[in-house]
Amino acid sequence: MPSVEILAVGTEMLLGQLVDTNSAFIAGKLAENGVDVFATHAVGDNRQRIAGTIRMALERADGVITTGGLGPTVDDLTKEAVCDALGVDTEVHEPSMRAMEEVFVKSGRQMRENNRKQALIPRGAIALDNREGTAPGFIATTGQGKFVASVPGVPREMKPMLTEGVLPWLQQRFRLTEHIRTRTLHTIGLAESEIDHRIADLFASLENPKIAVLAHQFRCDVKIMAKAASADAAIALIAPVEHELLRRLDGHVYGVDEETLPFAIHVLLRQTHRMIAVAESCTGGSVAAALTSVPGSSKSFAGGIVSYSNEVKMQLLGVQRQDLDRFGAVSEEVAKQMAAGVREHLGTGIGLAITGIAGPSGGTHEKPIGLVWLAISEASGARTRRLHLTGDREGIQSRATTAALGFLWERVRE
Amino acid sequence: MPSVEILAVGTEMLLGQLVDTNSAFIAGKLAENGVDVFATHAVGDNRQRIAGTIRMALERADGVITTGGLGPTVDDLTKEAVCDALGVDTEVHEPSMRAMEEVFVKSGRQMRENNRKQALIPRGAIALDNREGTAPGFIATTGQGKFVASVPGVPREMKPMLTEGVLPWLQQRFRLTEHIRTRTLHTIGLAESEIDHRIADLFASLENPKIAVLAHQFRCDVKIMAKAASADAAIALIAPVEHELLRRLDGHVYGVDEETLPFAIHVLLRQTHRMIAVAESCTGGSVAAALTSVPGSSKSFAGGIVSYSNEVKMQLLGVQRQDLDRFGAVSEEVAKQMAAGVREHLGTGIGLAITGIAGPSGGTHEKPIGLVWLAISEASGARTRRLHLTGDREGIQSRATTAALGFLWERVRE
Repeated sequence: MPSVEILAVGTEMLLGQLVDTNSAFIAGKLAENGVDVFATHAVGDNRQRIAGTIRMALERADGVITTGGLGPTVDDLTKEAVCDALGVDTEVHEPSMRAMEEVFVKSGRQMRENNRKQALIPRGAIALDNREGTAPGFIATTGQGKFVASVPGVPREMKPMLTEGVLPWLQQRFRLTEHIRTRTLHTIGLAESEIDHRIADLFASLENPKIAVLAHQFRCDVKIMAKAASADAAIALIAPVEHELLRRLDGHVYGVDEETLPFAIHVLLRQTHRMIAVAESCTGGSVAAALTSVPGSSKSFAGGIVSYSNEVKMQLLGVQRQDLDRFGAVSEEVAKQMAAGVREHLGTGIGLAITGIAGPSGGTHEKPIGLVWLAISEASGARTRRLHLTGDREGIQSRATTAALGFLWERVRE
Repeated sequence: MPSVEILAVGTEMLLGQLVDTNSAFIAGKLAENGVDVFATHAVGDNRQRIAGTIRMALERADGVITTGGLGPTVDDLTKEAVCDALGVDTEVHEPSMRAMEEVFVKSGRQMRENNRKQALIPRGAIALDNREGTAPGFIATTGQGKFVASVPGVPREMKPMLTEGVLPWLQQRFRLTEHIRTRTLHTIGLAESEIDHRIADLFASLENPKIAVLAHQFRCDVKIMAKAASADAAIALIAPVEHELLRRLDGHVYGVDEETLPFAIHVLLRQTHRMIAVAESCTGGSVAAALTSVPGSSKSFAGGIVSYSNEVKMQLLGVQRQDLDRFGAVSEEVAKQMAAGVREHLGTGIGLAITGIAGPSGGTHEKPIGLVWLAISEASGARTRRLHLTGDREGIQSRATTAALGFLWERVRE
């Protein structure tokens, strides 16, 4: 198993002005391909420190992947530092230079010396195309069979260069035969302890694939990780375990991998040709925003009403004044009337309502901050759910949003 | 200026399963206190690698701050590795042991050997209280005047221990006389180049405080950074520069530091006792959600209507069918009618409307993806703005939300 260290370059990280997310992305892709990441590092825009870190890392690992510092400014020093560390000079990469000249001719701007600098790569290195920007990356090798691969720091440029340039090279160079693939089942409505209970024997007996449970608020992810000699073989190992997990978690898995809860809801609504409308109080539009984050959501989402004031609840949703007075705005009765009102006013088959107290003020002994009522109204009747959420305003709003989507998903999948 | 390297410990980071945000937090706090961060590193739960990284870092820097690996499990090896690196053994920290015993007596659970392990610290080290958890941190010093400070990896435990334990110790130990303070002015409605133009002479002439411009979509931040012998003195250096910047950026600064655009809008609305209502199409509830993210927003936000379908635009907002047919849903005329409709239906002084094409489908040659119309309606009349946004669905929705809030802020501040 080849080993790699990752070096992120940029002074902003050392000043705490930027969180390095590139290293985690690169590490994840390397892990998937059976490459062992020994360590990650971040240093500033300092030629000596970049070169020193590369030299040290090459003493321990088979290679270094750097990210950042390939741009045209005087602060961009990664290329120079790689040359220092490997004891080589630079050469012009002609295709990159020609491509850059074209860009400047087209835009009518003048090309400066610092732009030309971007087309230089360490002598003898392999250039890596940058399909999202102008600066090429490169892979330089040493006489000792070690390597330094340098990719940009801008994530949009870095990601394709890593997956389309660096990873294929690593696979060939190290004849990587281990492929790791994962599949994540997203569940809702089961506590982590209940999931543990249902799959404890699999936990204990399975080695490849392995399974892991990650708890979120109201949701748990169950991750299946398989290693094999090819990606296809790894995927084949996952299939029977996924099948067994789906059986045991029946009725709680709303999606896999990239599939979100709003996406799962829209798929179910579309299959059954139903439309939904939403009435929100404490979530202030977040549930509607989540539902409209899905492309094509207009096919199943008609609209929503954010009824922050009691006047709006009465006027636009038909909530009765005497019930607001008697039960309060945060009550089962008002949630039901909101759900029925939005369904009727917007002419949909389903109405979802959320009313609650997000804080930081407005709580009482009987109705504390974090109390939330959910209601779903259909022609056939209503169902409701009471929640007591913890956290600050932002946390309560976000958990109420997830809980409301979960409640809706449970209903539409029946 | 003392120098420090930061070491984050945890295998999840090297598998790409966790983004290290602790290092940026620690680096930021050190920078504020005049400590130079040479580098940050992340290694897995591996005793030799942790110890090796600490030893190397101590050769370059005055100290190392580690985060993570102080818990009770077999994977928590930071303490043992620090002892290896410094050549010392551990001792029981009696106050921590007693505190932990109390917790276990109270909860009726039995204390295990691995819990006792948490109360050990390197012999001779200073223990650091953990007010959010059970494992203490510590600061160990070497005969050569170097140090290793170890804090937990859980951010909730790490942050107070760093600011209340490690920073005061560093200030005393290195007689830190340099305090760095920053103040950030948030602007909207000025391009980065226009800001550069207005403050170029300050850029060139100022050394302490320094200023920096950070561009976002539709917004720019202007950051003022001052160094002085005390925090108060640094703040005093900032004041006149802030004053001058406010003068030059007149009418475009909506807030400082933590103040958000929705917050600024609510402050202005409340000062003038005005209420607002929002009608959204392509932003799907995001503008309402942003406005209700502010505590107490019910005092100036009445509610919103997410009019995703044309039926809802007609029925709840009073948009005319012939205008939908003639101009289309994404048009100046429909935006105006939406804004007027939501203002009238919700009985507020101001109505804001957003209608646009977020994609990925639905664009035409005349009305491409990214076309957005904003409208503000008041009793005195309407104003509108046309935007052409780029990016994917998520990006267009988020930029349209910011642009709509900016448009609203400009109006309410007049």
